[in-house]
Formats: sequence, C-alpha cells, structure tokens
Amino acid sequence: MMDKIETYHFMVEPFHVDFTGHLFLGVLGNHLLNAAGRHSHNRGWGIDQLNQTHFTWVLSRLSIELDQMPEQYAEVEVETWVESVMKLFTERNFLIRNSKDGRIYGYARSIWAMIDTATRQPSDLLALKDGDILRYVLTPDEKQCPIAKHRPVRLSAAVQPVRTIDTYYSDVDINGHINSVKYIEHILDLFPQSQFERHAIRRFEIAYKAEAYMGDTLTFVTEPSTDTLPDRTPVSTQLEIRKNAGSEAHPQGEPIVAAKVVWE
Amino acid sequence: MMDKIETYHFMVEPFHVDFTGHLFLGVLGNHLLNAAGRHSHNRGWGIDQLNQTHFTWVLSRLSIELDQMPEQYAEVEVETWVESVMKLFTERNFLIRNSKDGRIYGYARSIWAMIDTATRQPSDLLALKDGDILRYVLTPDEKQCPIAKHRPVRLSAAVQPVRTIDTYYSDVDINGHINSVKYIEHILDLFPQSQFERHAIRRFEIAYKAEAYMGDTLTFVTEPSTDTLPDRTPVSTQLEIRKNAGSEAHPQGEPIVAAKVVWE
Repeated sequence: MMDKIETYHFMVEPFHVDFTGHLFLGVLGNHLLNAAGRHSHNRGWGIDQLNQTHFTWVLSRLSIELDQMPEQYAEVEVETWVESVMKLFTERNFLIRNSKDGRIYGYARSIWAMIDTATRQPSDLLALKDGDILRYVLTPDEKQCPIAKHRPVRLSAAVQPVRTIDTYYSDVDINGHINSVKYIEHILDLFPQSQFERHAIRRFEIAYKAEAYMGDTLTFVTEPSTDTLPDRTPVSTQLEIRKNAGSEAHPQGEPIVAAKVVWE
Repeated sequence: MMDKIETYHFMVEPFHVDFTGHLFLGVLGNHLLNAAGRHSHNRGWGIDQLNQTHFTWVLSRLSIELDQMPEQYAEVEVETWVESVMKLFTERNFLIRNSKDGRIYGYARSIWAMIDTATRQPSDLLALKDGDILRYVLTPDEKQCPIAKHRPVRLSAAVQPVRTIDTYYSDVDINGHINSVKYIEHILDLFPQSQFERHAIRRFEIAYKAEAYMGDTLTFVTEPSTDTLPDRTPVSTQLEIRKNAGSEAHPQGEPIVAAKVVWE
C-alpha cells in the first residue's frame, strides 16, 4: 500500500503566511500540486515524462477542507494518492498533517484529465501505457478521504460583477496560462480584511473550465449565501471568473473558473 | 570562515517559473530572504529570537544581478554572509549557484536595519549583545561580491504615473505590511510580455522607504532610460511606488519604494 502513497514535506515559510500568521491557501494549493507532481513523476506519470509523448495533466477541480490552517514555521507533510481512475478523469486525494505531532490539518480532493498537447483533446487514461495507472489506485476502503466530493457551483441569473482586473506577467505559468494558484489568490482578494480577522476558511472548491492568458481581463461575479454567521458574514460565497467580458461572443465574459468559499 | 557563511538550498518549482521557464525574480527574492533568515537564526540573531527582546530586522535595500536566471527544476544553492556592520545598518551579500554543476547565476547585496518594535526607531547594532554581530563579518578580502553597490534612484520631476492599483489580502505579510516580495511582482507586472520574450533582467535594485498596508493604493511612476537596446527597448527603467496619492499631505502620494530594472 505504501508505494501507492507519496509523502511530501514542507515548512511554512515566513513570506507564505497571511496577516493572521497562517499559510496562504494559494501556497497550500501550490504544495498540493507539487506533491501530486512528485507522486506522478516517481511512478512514471510525471508531466516531464509525458511531454515526451505529447500528453499532459490538466487540473480540473480542487477542493480543500481544513480544521485548521498551518501556522508560520509549522513542519507539514502531505500524503497524496489516487482514489479512482475513469476513462477521462482520475481522482487524487490529499491528507495534510503536522509532521511533528501528527495533527491533521485537513484533506483535499482533486480531479485531473490527461490531454493530448497537439489536439488539446482529453485522452483515455486506461488506454495509456497498457492501463499501468490502475496499479496505483487506493480505494476508499484502503485509504479514506473523509471530505465531501466536489459539487457544481450554480449562480443565479441575477448576479452582478464585483471586480474586474487585468492580468500581467506574474499571473502566467510556463504554458502562458493564468496560473491555477493565482486564481486562488485573486479570489481571496475579493474578501475584506475584517472577514479574515474574524473567520477562517473551512472549505474551498475551485473548478477550472477554460484557460486564460496574459492580458485577458478577469471579471469576478459573486453570490454570497443567505445563511450567515452570527456577525452576519455569509457562511459561503459562490463565484465565477469570466474572461474578456464585453466581447461579441461573450458579452458577460466567458466562464473560466467557478469556485466556492465556505467560512467558519 | 565557513561558520560565517550559510548555505541554503532550493529547487525551482514548476509554479515558480514564468512563461519563459525561468524562476520569477520575486520568488528568488523570497529565497534570498529565507537564506538571510536562516543565517541570522543559526547565529542567535533570528527575528524569532529578537522579537523576545523587541527588536526586528527591516530590509532597507536589495540589489540582484544575474548572468542567468535559474530554470525550472534547477537545484540551486544560495550562500549568504555579512560584509559589514555599521551602527545602524548591516550589509549582507548573496551568491546564487547551480548546486549540480557549480555554475554561478549571480549575486545579490542587501542592507538591513534593526528596529525597536516598540518605538519603530533604528537601534545601534554594535551595542546589541555586546557587539556579538561583529564575529560574523567576512570582509571583501575574505569573500567577494563582485556586483556594484546600491545606487540611489532619482526620478526627474516630470515623470507621470503609469498605473495605480489597490492592495488586498494576498499583498500583506504577518505584520500587516505590504510584503517586500509582492512589490517586486507588482513592479515587473508593469512591463509587457514582449519585453520578457526578448530580454532578461540583468540587474534589479529596490529600496524600501516606508510601509504600506492592506487597502492602500499604490501608484507607479516610471522613468525609462534614453539609452536603448537594438530593438529600442530602454536599457533600464527607474521607478517609484507612492501610496495613497490624492491625500492632502501627499497629493502625489507618499514615496514608499524606489527601484531600478536593467535589461539585457
């Protein structure tokens, strides 16, 4: 069983914590993606290995649920494993734990597709390398990830944009796409300081639907829940990021990211 | 001599490279600050140790000069040491090298002050801990840092703002100040994609003059050099970041950061 799990270690660096002294969620997301990359690479399924055969992994969804966010200087370990493989998607889970005292901070779930870099079309995961990927599956009976699966974000028709931003050099990754982690930063930047002072993020879900590029404008449309915490902060906010609103094809912008933030 | 030098290792992570496949300068800055923190901590001068006595380090200037920027997956080591200590400032240098083949990417220089966290006033470094800090000085005869020292940025009176941005949750550090590394990101975001496609940053200098806080607006004022590269790109750009322009005390904004970017 252990050769199906990769353990990835990191220390919470001083410049990676927010004003409350806790790890930025975007940085945690980055570490999870690094752990996923390490797991894949060490099993012959890394992006560097797949690029040679014109395939690459694309992150489709990521959901993180936390009891607590690691604090500055905490030593953290991430366990990651594959829960299932379907034809076009694979589910990868994560456990996030303090490496010194074993305390579990939380869990995450992710869904990935494999695309052909020439055609940009999804590939049949079970057909690649003679189904080798199935060797690494750990079913829920073998290793549990006790958080809910992703749920679709559905905004009501009446929602209005709350912010539009331009994108620049620091927003894009090696493929020239807006970086998955940067979307998380931009989403959390929608919330006021007082909300982070009073509440912690309990769950964060993000679905990546289409790519955006340097220079695209991003419009954020949010829908806070009507349920509120005792100080009237909405319990959760669903939101969508749309690119290049105002174009003829997409006057409201083309949806590229959907997300939900749940507070406690 | 070796106990005066700290060596800090890192690998260039996939989400830390720009669209050209090279490490983001802001991330390199973060690693240099981590190396500085490690060096200080291991010699009893870490922020965590000093906080107990109400003192903290404040970065005043940082200059980075590179022959090449490390590429994705490069294994990098940073050596850092103290070149001099004066009453109110200390100079700390850095060497940045590929740990596998020993190739030197470049060097950096920094200047730090020690402030009393109660009064926010600079402290006499030589008086603290009975001058213990002098034990760690490596003079230029002992260890060279072959790049120029910082030079003041002086903008002509006629320069005009090129961008104003708001600051949000992701911009601030544990002290509630706009993070030193985020300023580097925002500065590089002023340049167009084509400039990064054609040119690399040869030297970057930044001076931190005053603090800004979440919610402050930052106005960027730039002055490109009249010298140009063959494609007419200015060889360098000097710039200033000013906060909260339009206030009565500072109609043009209060200068908080000055910087210079040199391209090749």
